[in-house]
Formats: sequence, C-alpha cells, structure tokens
Amino acid sequence: MKSHVKYLWFNTQDRREYINITREVQEALEESGIQEGMILVSAMHITAGIYVNDAESGIIEDIDDMLDRLAPFGPDYHHHRTGEDNGDAHLKSILCHHQVIVHRTGEDNGDAHLKSILCHHQVIVPVTEGDMDLGPWQQIYYAEFDGRRRKRVIIKVLGE
Amino acid sequence: MKSHVKYLWFNTQDRREYINITREVQEALEESGIQEGMILVSAMHITAGIYVNDAESGIIEDIDDMLDRLAPFGPDYHHHRTGEDNGDAHLKSILCHHQVIVHRTGEDNGDAHLKSILCHHQVIVPVTEGDMDLGPWQQIYYAEFDGRRRKRVIIKVLGE
Amino acid sequence: MKSHVKYLWFNTQDRREYINITREVQEALEESGIQEGMILVSAMHITAGIYVNDAESGIIEDIDDMLDRLAPFGPDYHHHRTGEDNGDAHLKSILCHHQVIVHRTGEDNGDAHLKSILCHHQVIVPVTEGDMDLGPWQQIYYAEFDGRRRKRVIIKVLGE
Repeated sequence: MKSHVKYLWFNTQDRREYINITREVQEALEESGIQEGMILVSAMHITAGIYVNDAESGIIEDIDDMLDRLAPFGPDYHHHRTGEDNGDAHLKSILCHHQVIVHRTGEDNGDAHLKSILCHHQVIVPVTEGDMDLGPWQQIYYAEFDGRRRKRVIIKVLGE
Repeated sequence: MKSHVKYLWFNTQDRREYINITREVQEALEESGIQEGMILVSAMHITAGIYVNDAESGIIEDIDDMLDRLAPFGPDYHHHRTGEDNGDAHLKSILCHHQVIVHRTGEDNGDAHLKSILCHHQVIVPVTEGDMDLGPWQQIYYAEFDGRRRKRVIIKVLGE
Repeated sequence: MKSHVKYLWFNTQDRREYINITREVQEALEESGIQEGMILVSAMHITAGIYVNDAESGIIEDIDDMLDRLAPFGPDYHHHRTGEDNGDAHLKSILCHHQVIVHRTGEDNGDAHLKSILCHHQVIVPVTEGDMDLGPWQQIYYAEFDGRRRKRVIIKVLGE
C-alpha cells in the first residue's frame, strides 16, 4: 500500500467563498503515483466544507443561498455567548467530555459551524487506472464559511 | 492491497426515486474477494445521492418530504438562468476557477443539486471478515433527484 | 495492508445526546499500530450520526437546535404510521426492493432518521505518521437522536 499526503492553504478575501480544487486534488494524485485507491479530501477547520458538485456560478449561488437560509448568519447562537461574561475575545479552558479544550470566545461564526455540518466537511474520490473516477460534471469544491484567515485542507491518497 | 470497481446504471421512470442497492453492493464485495477493507459507494452525477437508512416506505416518504421542504423543486434558482439570454437549451463554455466547463443551459433541476448536497452523495461501508459490517437496519440507498435519464453509481472496494 | 476494528456501545440517558469520542478513536488507532491510513467512524444505527466539529457546549446546543428545526421531533411522520392498523408495537415483514425487512411498528422516531441523514452518519479521519491528522479544533462526536437503548458505532482503521 502506498500513501501520499498534501495540504492546501486558503486565506479568502470574503467571509464565504467557494473554490474549485479539482485540479489540486488531481495534482496530489499524480504525485502519489497511485493507480487504484481512494483520495480523502477533508477540511481541517470546523467552519468550512468540502463538496462535489457543479462548476457553474448559478448553482454555487444557490448552494450559498440554501445554506444561509437553513443556517443563517446572525448574532443569536449559543456559541457566541461562550465566555461572554469576560467582555471580549480571549482564551479559556473548557472541560468537555474528559478533554480540556482551549477555546476563543467572542465568536460570531456560529452559522459557519452549522453550514459545515449541513454541507459535510469531506469527500472521498475514487481512483481507477491512475485517474480520479468522477462523473462528467463532478468537481471538488472547498466551501469557506468563515474566511479571511489561514485555513487548511488535507488531501490523503491511499492505494497501490 | 486488492481493489475492485463496479458501476451501476439507473434510468428511473420518475423524477425522484429511492432505490435500495444493498444487494448490488454485497455482490460487488463478493466479486472482490476482499475480507477486510472499505467499500465506497458514490453517485457519479451531481443531482443524486447515496445514503444509509431504513428500508421502510414511510421513512422514504419522510426523507423525500424533508429534502423537498429544505430544497424545494421550483423555477427560482440561479442555476436555471444559466445562458437564459440564449433562449433555449444548448452548450456553453464557462470559465470557472481555471477550468473550462462545458455546460447545458435551460436547466430546471436546481433543487436536485441542493438535495444532493444535503443528502450527501456517498457512503463508505466497512468490510469485516468478508461481510459488510452494517447494523441491523442499515440499508444502502440510491436517491435519484433528477431522473428519467441514464445515470451512474461507482462501487469501489479496497482492502485485503 | 493492516486493518483493525473496534466497536463502541452507547446507551444514553436522554433521547438526544452529543458525545465526544475523539479519545476512543485515538485508542483504536493506537491499538492498530497503523502509521499511514484512514479511520472510518460510522454509526451502525439509522437514528444516530457522527460528525466532526467543536468541543464547545454552545455550538453543540446550536447543532441540536438546527437539526430539530430542520427535522423536528413530532408525531406527523409517515414512518410512524407503519402498521398502525395493528394497534400497537409489534414486528412486521415488509417486502422492500427485493429484500424482506422485519420492522418494528409504533415508531415515534421519524425525526431521528431525518436528523441522521442531515448530520451524516460517518466520518473518515486521516492518519499521518501514526497520528490522527486533524485540525486544531476538530473533535469527533457521536450524535444520538433516539437514545435510551443500546446502540453501536464501528471504528475501522485501514492502512500500513
């Protein structure tokens, strides 16, 4: 079995952006030399998604509209009240299910977490005879829901 | 490592249909001879989904009702305006994030793309001791959201 | 190729609970001895989900609020009418797409099936140099949508 890992970095200009990363995934596959296997493409942040759909500007707007209708940007999330007694953004320890998590407060991105859940944060691309085994319209997208800072995606190729 | 690939074709009578493909996935596993591994089951079109849930007609209706409530069939999607200045359906080149995509216009299936995002277009089935390692009620479904034409699903088995 | 399988059992006190299982997945990885690969974490019941997001109590409440807004708990699902002519809960055979499925009737958990679809029932965790290759805030959660009975999750590690 062979494996290959590659990381993509993003720092979008807008809060929400949808970026076609099919070419980058293809490059990672070529670097791996793998002929038969799978490629995991997975957001490493919890306010972003990965999906497979159409490289068509209208459908991208429709996806954004739907996600913002189902999980609207707004001030009313429980997530935003984390540590609000402290007045402003800082680090805080939260004991959560046996694990100490250090967390920023003063968040305004509750919607982005929810959009990530709905859109899902990862896809698997099958590899057959050295190529991505995708249908004619399938393109791989990075969905940024809380951008304007450095965020990362992992591409992991496994196979032979 | 061994791998095996199989494609299923569908051409449904109705626009939306939900088809149990558990037996077909089981057959692909048997053909592969793989004892320990994973099976990727993935729609190759962007207006279809794959999910794991109950082989019960009521829940299938409920899933359809929910998806059509959250992403309703209708005329008001940006996706439908692609190339509308051209009057009717034809091919058009769209330059989208470094990639030239040839795309049909005159679409009416914006809802089907969104349902595919919400439902997700793929699942992974674990394989243990030569069998699909599923829970008692888990059945694998192909969800067609824009049928009445030939569409394809990939089943990719990887393991040993 | 190496593989390792492990099952987690849950029996929650509440109907809906969100349980951080990152440590348990880490333990399964250590048991496997795998250095490069993937870990499938997948609910084996159709009224539960697995997701990756924040170990922060506010966002967990927000996820629960959203899922119950999009797929509300309630009596009005088709799924609940299964076998209702029989008066009370019992077993019944349903012939569904070539497969005989034995199914309980008198269900009240239609919402839980739908929440499972929206949340998705599985994630893949990449493994690099013997560690889970997760981003700084990524934690793995079991989402119980119809608890108070024994339910199971599979952790399957594949790699080398």
